[in-house]
Amino acid sequence: MLSDAKKWLIGKPLKSNELGEQKLNKRKALAILSSDALSSVAYGPEQVFIVLAAAGAAAYWYSIPIGMGVLLLLTVLILSYRQILYAYPQGGGAYVVAKEQLGVYPGLIAGGSLLVDYILTVAVSVSAGTDAITSAIPILHEYNVPIAILFVMVITLLNLRGLTESASIMAYPAYLFVLALLILIIGGLWRIATGQEPPGAHGTFGVPVAGVGLFLLVKAFASGSSALTGVEAISNAIPNFKAPAAQNAVRTLLAMGILLAVLFAGILFLAYYYGISPRPEVTLVSDIAERTFGRGFVYYLIQGVTALILILAANTGYSAFPMLAVNLAKDKFVPRMFSARGDRLGYSNGIIALGLLSIVLIIAFQGRTERLIPLYAVGVFIPFALSQTGMTLKWLREKPKGWALKLGINAIGALASLTVVLIFFVTKPTQVWPVLIFLPALIVVFLLIRGHYRAVGDGLRISEEHEPSIEGNVLIVPVAGITKVVEGSLNYARSLAADHLIAVHVSFDREEEEAFRVKWAEWQPDVRLVTLHSPYRSIIQPLSKFIDVMQRKAGAANYRVTVIIPQFVPKKGWHNMLHNQSGFLLHTYLLYRRDIIVTTVPYHLPK
Amino acid sequence: MLSDAKKWLIGKPLKSNELGEQKLNKRKALAILSSDALSSVAYGPEQVFIVLAAAGAAAYWYSIPIGMGVLLLLTVLILSYRQILYAYPQGGGAYVVAKEQLGVYPGLIAGGSLLVDYILTVAVSVSAGTDAITSAIPILHEYNVPIAILFVMVITLLNLRGLTESASIMAYPAYLFVLALLILIIGGLWRIATGQEPPGAHGTFGVPVAGVGLFLLVKAFASGSSALTGVEAISNAIPNFKAPAAQNAVRTLLAMGILLAVLFAGILFLAYYYGISPRPEVTLVSDIAERTFGRGFVYYLIQGVTALILILAANTGYSAFPMLAVNLAKDKFVPRMFSARGDRLGYSNGIIALGLLSIVLIIAFQGRTERLIPLYAVGVFIPFALSQTGMTLKWLREKPKGWALKLGINAIGALASLTVVLIFFVTKPTQVWPVLIFLPALIVVFLLIRGHYRAVGDGLRISEEHEPSIEGNVLIVPVAGITKVVEGSLNYARSLAADHLIAVHVSFDREEEEAFRVKWAEWQPDVRLVTLHSPYRSIIQPLSKFIDVMQRKAGAANYRVTVIIPQFVPKKGWHNMLHNQSGFLLHTYLLYRRDIIVTTVPYHLPK
Repeated sequence: MLSDAKKWLIGKPLKSNELGEQKLNKRKALAILSSDALSSVAYGPEQVFIVLAAAGAAAYWYSIPIGMGVLLLLTVLILSYRQILYAYPQGGGAYVVAKEQLGVYPGLIAGGSLLVDYILTVAVSVSAGTDAITSAIPILHEYNVPIAILFVMVITLLNLRGLTESASIMAYPAYLFVLALLILIIGGLWRIATGQEPPGAHGTFGVPVAGVGLFLLVKAFASGSSALTGVEAISNAIPNFKAPAAQNAVRTLLAMGILLAVLFAGILFLAYYYGISPRPEVTLVSDIAERTFGRGFVYYLIQGVTALILILAANTGYSAFPMLAVNLAKDKFVPRMFSARGDRLGYSNGIIALGLLSIVLIIAFQGRTERLIPLYAVGVFIPFALSQTGMTLKWLREKPKGWALKLGINAIGALASLTVVLIFFVTKPTQVWPVLIFLPALIVVFLLIRGHYRAVGDGLRISEEHEPSIEGNVLIVPVAGITKVVEGSLNYARSLAADHLIAVHVSFDREEEEAFRVKWAEWQPDVRLVTLHSPYRSIIQPLSKFIDVMQRKAGAANYRVTVIIPQFVPKKGWHNMLHNQSGFLLHTYLLYRRDIIVTTVPYHLPK
Repeated sequence: MLSDAKKWLIGKPLKSNELGEQKLNKRKALAILSSDALSSVAYGPEQVFIVLAAAGAAAYWYSIPIGMGVLLLLTVLILSYRQILYAYPQGGGAYVVAKEQLGVYPGLIAGGSLLVDYILTVAVSVSAGTDAITSAIPILHEYNVPIAILFVMVITLLNLRGLTESASIMAYPAYLFVLALLILIIGGLWRIATGQEPPGAHGTFGVPVAGVGLFLLVKAFASGSSALTGVEAISNAIPNFKAPAAQNAVRTLLAMGILLAVLFAGILFLAYYYGISPRPEVTLVSDIAERTFGRGFVYYLIQGVTALILILAANTGYSAFPMLAVNLAKDKFVPRMFSARGDRLGYSNGIIALGLLSIVLIIAFQGRTERLIPLYAVGVFIPFALSQTGMTLKWLREKPKGWALKLGINAIGALASLTVVLIFFVTKPTQVWPVLIFLPALIVVFLLIRGHYRAVGDGLRISEEHEPSIEGNVLIVPVAGITKVVEGSLNYARSLAADHLIAVHVSFDREEEEAFRVKWAEWQPDVRLVTLHSPYRSIIQPLSKFIDVMQRKAGAANYRVTVIIPQFVPKKGWHNMLHNQSGFLLHTYLLYRRDIIVTTVPYHLPK
């Protein structure tokens, strides 16, 4: 029944050799891997204006040079990542690059911050998208958190069904979003070109404004670069591409870069030219759309599609997080289960973990996860900086043909990313300090996990010295009463023809004990019975004491002790509540605390 | 560590023969078993005035005859219960009496409603007491629910420590409450006797008031009789008394009856004479105390002690609920675990269940459980009526010396209780209807549980036809790799000298499968290896299919199949998260779904 429900929700299991069919073509990959990056134009440009607003509306013209700076940074990042895709066609992105080129610790810093970042991606995007919807339908506003959780659950399910199936669903909204924003930008430019917009609405370009210093400008730049989060997603996901994977990935990356640049530049320019001030309750895109088309069909289309892409941006996290977890699991830094493929060939444990953790974040922040945006941005630029630095070193070491240009691109990328990180720490220290706590903590956990796996691996490896051989067996059967369950276990124990067979009865009361001895002697005269008196009414304590004594004796003669537990199995699961679980407790206790072999002989009630 | 914490919280385990020391003497029993009944004078008299207030202040004089009616009912109940105590010295109260004299169904009605009632006792009393405290310290008001839950948890712990220990703690507040109320009553009478109270404050006695009909009067009477809830507690708890149990219990009952009557009558009379109208935000007792002593030390003493006794009234539920559950468990109507004594010889499962259920109620009603009072009262009078009816029949059947008087007392008790129940259903149907839902539902559950226990008992009883004997054994060892864990299991399997030993390896990929076969042939040439290919990456499915086939073959020859699971046991519990739990899953699956004997051979990492 449970497995039927599972099948209905995530589809029938797929065979391992059906893997190829689950791979992505470029059109789908662009939709699935870019929604995070593209959706950030919905809030990136606005961040620039919010910072500039501190110096008054006259300072808005600075948004144009700042926007150019962001576009420059985007170009550098795209070019740098293009080189990473070719150099690491097996995927892995920042973690793999930093680990191979810089060493384990930089790798773990990159991997750890990306891992946390993808969780933030999901929580932040879904919360923002939900906000957009509930702003449109105010009656839903108080249900923000449950709605966001519902979305996360739906996206998790889609991803458990498998990559391409979810990509088909994701493809339409992503392209619709690009289309809607292009219509908006062209419409706006048309209005400007035809003189429908008064040219005096915006401040004069190039006039220095009092109060605008370097601090404010770099802060605005860093804020604007939050529009670039998500650019790295493709580098983690190359193995999901159809062959030739690297080439297809690069083309997808370039297409994404161009789209991102066009949309970002268009929105920023219209906002500047229209002279729009950021308002807390209305988004910049909404203001632009309303000025351009009025509150008509096109306006609502743009708003709706924006909300949708924000929610779907979460999906980028779902394709990148599990792949990163696989890479970390291969190096034994996270539990091995993250590298197992599920029924539908996705890395289901990673997908489920991501869903659960982002739901926890959404609940903890009551859906107000927007304040995590700076944290999220700095968490992206740290691995950017590390992977570009790694690439720079790689070119320096290997010096392939044309290495000077490659080195230049990656070095500039590294420097630019590092600068953004430093700007964040200098201009927004109160918002990004948690990075300094969770990153080291996460790395300690990674190292502890690897330490454990290594110790276990060493301990279990077959060595020259064999395990001591077993000379004989002592079988102990705890008996609670004179029933068919016990009879079945005794029959089984006898069939093993062991050297010693002992039945043990724990009694709380002397009279019952005596009566049991008499009945036993009549029923099973050939099986030796030991009765244990338990003044504290515990079954496990006296039993384990007795077993300890037997094991000490047996061990001296290289005998092994086996406890045979007669287990009554009721017909229905809930019936277990009506029976004491001594058998189960004893089983766990003996295995984990006592190193005793435990055999369970089930007895099913005849139907 | 866990067991240390347990020891610290509830004390060291006691031996079964230390039971006598845990029994109650009369002084402690009065405190522990009467706090429920006594505390109800804190709200009982007020209920009468609230109903009469509907007809105006002139109608308050009716409270005197109504109060006399309640006292008469109290006398009848005390006398009736006195007879029950002598007739049923082994305890059990309404459930046992009704079951023996009237049959199983009336017994279950009585038992079921008492069971629910004790949960209500705890929830209602603790909520009311918490209200009293947070009314005094308004800053705590918004934490009502967590504070109430904390109190329930503390009382639960005290009861897990054991009866007499908690009785010692309970004794002081209970006696302090009686003392405080006696001081209040004497003080009030003194003021009246010395003429400090104007005699004209109250309405004229005996003047009929328009609008006061029979309906209003019986409603006021039923409301006032809510002061009698808790009277039955002693009858359930006789086995907790020191010998001679019945006699000690009867004396305690009489003492409680007298105290209850004095306090109830005193409060009611003062309220009438002072001419006090009930006010929603201030209790009647508070008003009387303020008028008598002013807002001084004595006033705050009375208020504080009242709050305390209300919280401790919950404790009555804790001594009665587990005893009732034991009686129901003996007859197999509730799970057997309710009849097992815990470390401190109390029936810990009953105590814990009561604590949890009342916390659930408190949370569900957000601490506003006062609206459950009518439900609670009707739930008490149903078993009153049933047990008195049972006693009436008993005297009719047995006709012992002086049976006519005994019959008379119990018949009047039965009739009076039944009348109260009927009045509740007629005058407050909207508040007591849930009884008609949960009582039948509870009885169905009782019967289902007994049905299950009976079926199991029949199924497990040793019969003439013996279980088929076992001719030989087939041992199957699932092997995941070539490790010391597997080596240990194979050594053990060989030592059992079974007829067949087969190692099974599940592989997800053909190359790995081939490599494994080669390595195996080298490592364990004498153990037959079967490899299973699992295209869907499940381990349990192909394994269970294979085991099914083996079992079919083996069963035909009266062979039994045993699956030997090599189980790696990590050093620390949390390490289990880092290893897959296939062994555990396989164990559960084979036992519960497949009727296969499962042996687990643990392998502990050398320290």
